[in-house]
Amino acid sequence: MTYIETLGKQAKKAARDLLSLSTSEKNALLTLVTKRLVSETALLLTENAKDLAQAKENGISEIMTDRLRLTPERIKGIAEGVRQVADLEDPIGQVVRGYTNLDGLKIVQKRMPLGVIAMIFESRPNVSVDAFSLAFKTNNAIILRGGRDAINSNKALVMVIRQALEDGGVNPDVVQLVENTSHVVAEDLMQAVDYVDLLIPRGGAKLIQTVKEKSKVPVIETGVGNCHIYVDEFADLEMATKIVLNAKIQRPSVCNAAESLVVHEKIAEQFLPMLEDAANEVQAIEFRADEKACSLLKTAVPATEEDYATEFLDYIMSVKVVSSLEEAIAWVNTYTSSHSEAIVTRDLVAAEKFQDQVDAAAVYVNASTRFTDGFVFGLGAEIGISTQKMHARGPMGLEALTSTKFYINGQGQIRE
Amino acid sequence: MTYIETLGKQAKKAARDLLSLSTSEKNALLTLVTKRLVSETALLLTENAKDLAQAKENGISEIMTDRLRLTPERIKGIAEGVRQVADLEDPIGQVVRGYTNLDGLKIVQKRMPLGVIAMIFESRPNVSVDAFSLAFKTNNAIILRGGRDAINSNKALVMVIRQALEDGGVNPDVVQLVENTSHVVAEDLMQAVDYVDLLIPRGGAKLIQTVKEKSKVPVIETGVGNCHIYVDEFADLEMATKIVLNAKIQRPSVCNAAESLVVHEKIAEQFLPMLEDAANEVQAIEFRADEKACSLLKTAVPATEEDYATEFLDYIMSVKVVSSLEEAIAWVNTYTSSHSEAIVTRDLVAAEKFQDQVDAAAVYVNASTRFTDGFVFGLGAEIGISTQKMHARGPMGLEALTSTKFYINGQGQIRE
Repeated sequence: MTYIETLGKQAKKAARDLLSLSTSEKNALLTLVTKRLVSETALLLTENAKDLAQAKENGISEIMTDRLRLTPERIKGIAEGVRQVADLEDPIGQVVRGYTNLDGLKIVQKRMPLGVIAMIFESRPNVSVDAFSLAFKTNNAIILRGGRDAINSNKALVMVIRQALEDGGVNPDVVQLVENTSHVVAEDLMQAVDYVDLLIPRGGAKLIQTVKEKSKVPVIETGVGNCHIYVDEFADLEMATKIVLNAKIQRPSVCNAAESLVVHEKIAEQFLPMLEDAANEVQAIEFRADEKACSLLKTAVPATEEDYATEFLDYIMSVKVVSSLEEAIAWVNTYTSSHSEAIVTRDLVAAEKFQDQVDAAAVYVNASTRFTDGFVFGLGAEIGISTQKMHARGPMGLEALTSTKFYINGQGQIRE
Repeated sequence: MTYIETLGKQAKKAARDLLSLSTSEKNALLTLVTKRLVSETALLLTENAKDLAQAKENGISEIMTDRLRLTPERIKGIAEGVRQVADLEDPIGQVVRGYTNLDGLKIVQKRMPLGVIAMIFESRPNVSVDAFSLAFKTNNAIILRGGRDAINSNKALVMVIRQALEDGGVNPDVVQLVENTSHVVAEDLMQAVDYVDLLIPRGGAKLIQTVKEKSKVPVIETGVGNCHIYVDEFADLEMATKIVLNAKIQRPSVCNAAESLVVHEKIAEQFLPMLEDAANEVQAIEFRADEKACSLLKTAVPATEEDYATEFLDYIMSVKVVSSLEEAIAWVNTYTSSHSEAIVTRDLVAAEKFQDQVDAAAVYVNASTRFTDGFVFGLGAEIGISTQKMHARGPMGLEALTSTKFYINGQGQIRE
């Protein structure tokens, strides 16, 4: 039996054990986990220090190292996240529809766990805890495969969670860490159709692409955001400037940051220099632009085809000037990663058309793309942002971790 | 460009053209298709006759040939099915949730088309028309890949639909038939991630398995039903007899027919001979049974491990005697194809436990598994029965052919 088969079997067994756990039992256990994480702060910091030392040795950048770092404050934050999940409404058992059919059968469709969820993710150790808490709240077992960079932190976090669960009388295999971070083992996980119901990759475009190509387990693609902002001919240009700057600059490393600017030719001459000047006051942006935009921007360089398709995650932005709303929509639909797209306009018809025809999970009118987020959207939690159309689209809360089952009760009915 | 790439591009373009079609326009076009199918009866019969002649030449069984056969009556039925889809409520544009968030953003999640659906199916030509009408009602384009046996019938049906759409001013590429029925082309379709959003295989276990293994396009597994009926120690044995006979005999070739019988040891001695006698009065069943059941049935043969995992689609049934409800549940969960499972009992606790813990799309108490069906369940339509947990589970109606999109409207909001 392979390592993944062993974990898979254990997860499947744990998922079955989990089935009978009630909402209040789950919430009590999440509270136990919250407390344990805080009380084990010293241990978590010690283990995290090993990863930080390794990162230093490997010459990892300060920004990346910071993503890895745990502090007492951050551990408290991670624990508080678990407590908040306990507070969320439990979707399991919720009735989606229910009725008596013509045969007199009482039919009720209820929300059910998926079973076993696996997650392959990079760097940030808080993801382990977040993913566990959302899976647990929905009675799913989870197998976590984090990056090598955070292996000691992840081991410690998962151990602490498992101890809390065991103290609470629950099979600790509801959360398991893949401690062997080799690619071979990750690929075994992608093939584990007999044990894993859903695989969620979280990380860069390359990780997502690899998982999508290789996985036989159903995958939800998450997170790649080549987000566009289209500044329409009827835009309020002050508002457009603020929105573009916010979407590009406020936190460039995240998936809902904007990467591409599309500008209507009628306002390009006025808007582009205005935007460039405003950017230079806070944070210069490297514009990679088409010919027309290059002629209007002081520092722009010509864009390549690849630039338009790239998620820069940096202070870089591609620029395209279009001659109509239709051209803008077609442009966005060509390069979109189907995450978040925005139009800035005062024209009602343009706004409606853009929202109806742009093919993305979230389409904004007059707001920054940076809002695409499960918490901001009011879902109470987020395990990722789906950029595909099946099962879940956009920010995924607890409901995205559920399936359904039909309960049918009869009095001896047979089919004629 | 490969053949499938050409079809895929055309489908994608057609799907985009379809986006702007309103409910009443779609319904009017479905009515046009209904009329056209009936008025082209002669043509359809002529083309169908070619397939029937070929089937005769190939020595296809009368049962299989009958599945292939069109008659004026059947064509009327197929056309009537299209008209009924026109009558169904349109899920596209329906608001799933909507609210104003803390930032003052107006967030509305609406049902949207998936885009391009592909279906690989066997034999029955009516599937072409059913699948088209459900896809069209949900603003999706569809690519149909039927079996070689029905190629002339499918060509004629799709041509007639396309003519009606063209007359109605719609891009006929919303429905396309893969006229090359080679396996190579089918596999191209399974790889067409750039053009196809969802692939639905409909047919035997082998087809489903092949598609599941080879497809890179997201797949919904449908239809394989190794359905069990568990006759509990507290069952009404008269009712159990009727339910088992109905589920096994009434139409053995369908996925919701029962294949496996599980009997509590406390009633096995009384129940099994009673069932056998009742069966022999209407239709003898070949029982493949464990030792205990073999000793109680006159004509049973010993079951192999494989028998318990087989969807016979015939007057054959595996039999297992268990000593407890828990053993019954574990048995069902080991061999279930997650389609439909039933318990016959008067014990409320047993009924609840069986429904909660059996892992299948539909779990019955005191009724025949034969009821699992989109129409019977009141969904108004059915494009297949999902036996997986992602996206859709159980009978799939129009909603299963939709995704969602978040519409967010602001007044210049940026993220702090």
